[in-house]
Amino acid sequence: MERVDIAIIGTGPAGLEAAITASIRNKKILLFGKKTLSEKIERGHLIRNYLGVPDVSGKELRQRFMDHLNAFGLSITEDRITAVYSMGDYFSLQGSSGMFYEADSVILATGVTSGKTLEGESEYLGNGVSYCATCDAPLYRNKDVAVLCYSKNEESEADFLSEICSSVSLYVQYSDEVDVKDSIEIVNEKPIGVKRENQKTIVSTLSGNSYTYDGVFILRDSVAPSNLVPGLITEGAHVICDRNMKTNIEGCFACGDITGLPYQYIKSAGEGNIAALSACAYLDSKKRINK
Amino acid sequence: MERVDIAIIGTGPAGLEAAITASIRNKKILLFGKKTLSEKIERGHLIRNYLGVPDVSGKELRQRFMDHLNAFGLSITEDRITAVYSMGDYFSLQGSSGMFYEADSVILATGVTSGKTLEGESEYLGNGVSYCATCDAPLYRNKDVAVLCYSKNEESEADFLSEICSSVSLYVQYSDEVDVKDSIEIVNEKPIGVKRENQKTIVSTLSGNSYTYDGVFILRDSVAPSNLVPGLITEGAHVICDRNMKTNIEGCFACGDITGLPYQYIKSAGEGNIAALSACAYLDSKKRINK
Repeated sequence: MERVDIAIIGTGPAGLEAAITASIRNKKILLFGKKTLSEKIERGHLIRNYLGVPDVSGKELRQRFMDHLNAFGLSITEDRITAVYSMGDYFSLQGSSGMFYEADSVILATGVTSGKTLEGESEYLGNGVSYCATCDAPLYRNKDVAVLCYSKNEESEADFLSEICSSVSLYVQYSDEVDVKDSIEIVNEKPIGVKRENQKTIVSTLSGNSYTYDGVFILRDSVAPSNLVPGLITEGAHVICDRNMKTNIEGCFACGDITGLPYQYIKSAGEGNIAALSACAYLDSKKRINK
Repeated sequence: MERVDIAIIGTGPAGLEAAITASIRNKKILLFGKKTLSEKIERGHLIRNYLGVPDVSGKELRQRFMDHLNAFGLSITEDRITAVYSMGDYFSLQGSSGMFYEADSVILATGVTSGKTLEGESEYLGNGVSYCATCDAPLYRNKDVAVLCYSKNEESEADFLSEICSSVSLYVQYSDEVDVKDSIEIVNEKPIGVKRENQKTIVSTLSGNSYTYDGVFILRDSVAPSNLVPGLITEGAHVICDRNMKTNIEGCFACGDITGLPYQYIKSAGEGNIAALSACAYLDSKKRINK
């Protein structure tokens, strides 16, 4: 796949505004997210302070955003990005489909992760702990794995693992009805930590139990930014950035809830605009230097 | 007049969003600007990246903003603020009508001043140089004054001065047709500097001429922020503020074009939202301390 100018991760107001502004500036983009946009927007009740659109429901605002995207002919790539690697002068993005994507710059607009990272999660990521079933399933062929699953959207990943692994134990951390293959064992426990001992990964739970597996998959709609982008400076769930939406990693920008409070639609959209224009300025200056 | 929680100066997207958000948070506000909102918006051609409102004309977007303001029953006080003084734990705002207003906090959303400050302008402000005809006319009764006028909106101030002063020389710095009293002398010169010598104010012009008056009034739609708010830290035409839109003066926030590039509607609206919520947080913490 051809390298794009800007990869934008997230389809809330920040990512959408960034995509539209970048597209006006004739940049080639990839916009990662859900075709249904942000679930948070849909769940929003009356939104009263999105200037120019008084007293609008979350559903209606989402429709307006979709209409705007369609007016620009922008499409959404439905692949959950599980890792963003800075390769020096470009970025490599790993999707949960197993695909890799390349971009000259990245805009993080993934929203704020609900729920804390588990104890040990960051430490053992890539060593018995994985965010991507498609990528890492082959490592656990005929082995026993746990899936700590925080979103119904990820059930298909558990199904996929059950075709490859000996056993899959699914820790259901969402309230929707569960609909997975019969061979998958449902565990009604709340995980609080993971650790690695003797080539095994141990899940500890709130009730004080411990369970041992060959590997553990942690599947959330969005990944904590510090785990998504190795080397990114964060403070809690938030990415540190300046008023131009620059992060500490050259060519990597952030906007929306991920950058901190207030969690407001118009604030996110405004930051998406700034992030896109900062990315354009970065790309233009890079082009001048390389000439 | 009763002291309000927040005085918001400016009726572009930043000021309007700040007013709406502050009003949702039940703050008592004064919103200073023009009932026709921002002239810049009206002059805007097709606006393509105001997320949720695709391909909208400046006029239509302005109408949407007005509708939003009306939905909240918010009114605009049409008084040009010529000075904002921090009084310790509140602010005193001077209007060109001669009125004074008090507010516990201030949000600057005046946009970016087109045209540079004249040489000597900041130095002699309050000493032979004035921004406010209504306030300072009595100082020049039966004296000779110049009015350096950058907006047709200010012609009435020149008319008013002509009733009090011996002579008024009007330096017309706008392209609209001039419509002032016959007694006013029109000077077709471009002022570049002002200075004070022997109790007189001297205007120097681009063509190399100098003219001497008892006092000089400089009338623009918006005042450079450093002259508007004594003590405010600025960089060129922009106010320095942090990601919460706080300026260096406690209780004084800024948003929109005045805070710097990019000059974009959605960026301004987003910052207006942040500024309002920061002002609310400031007011709430002040209330807690005073209890």
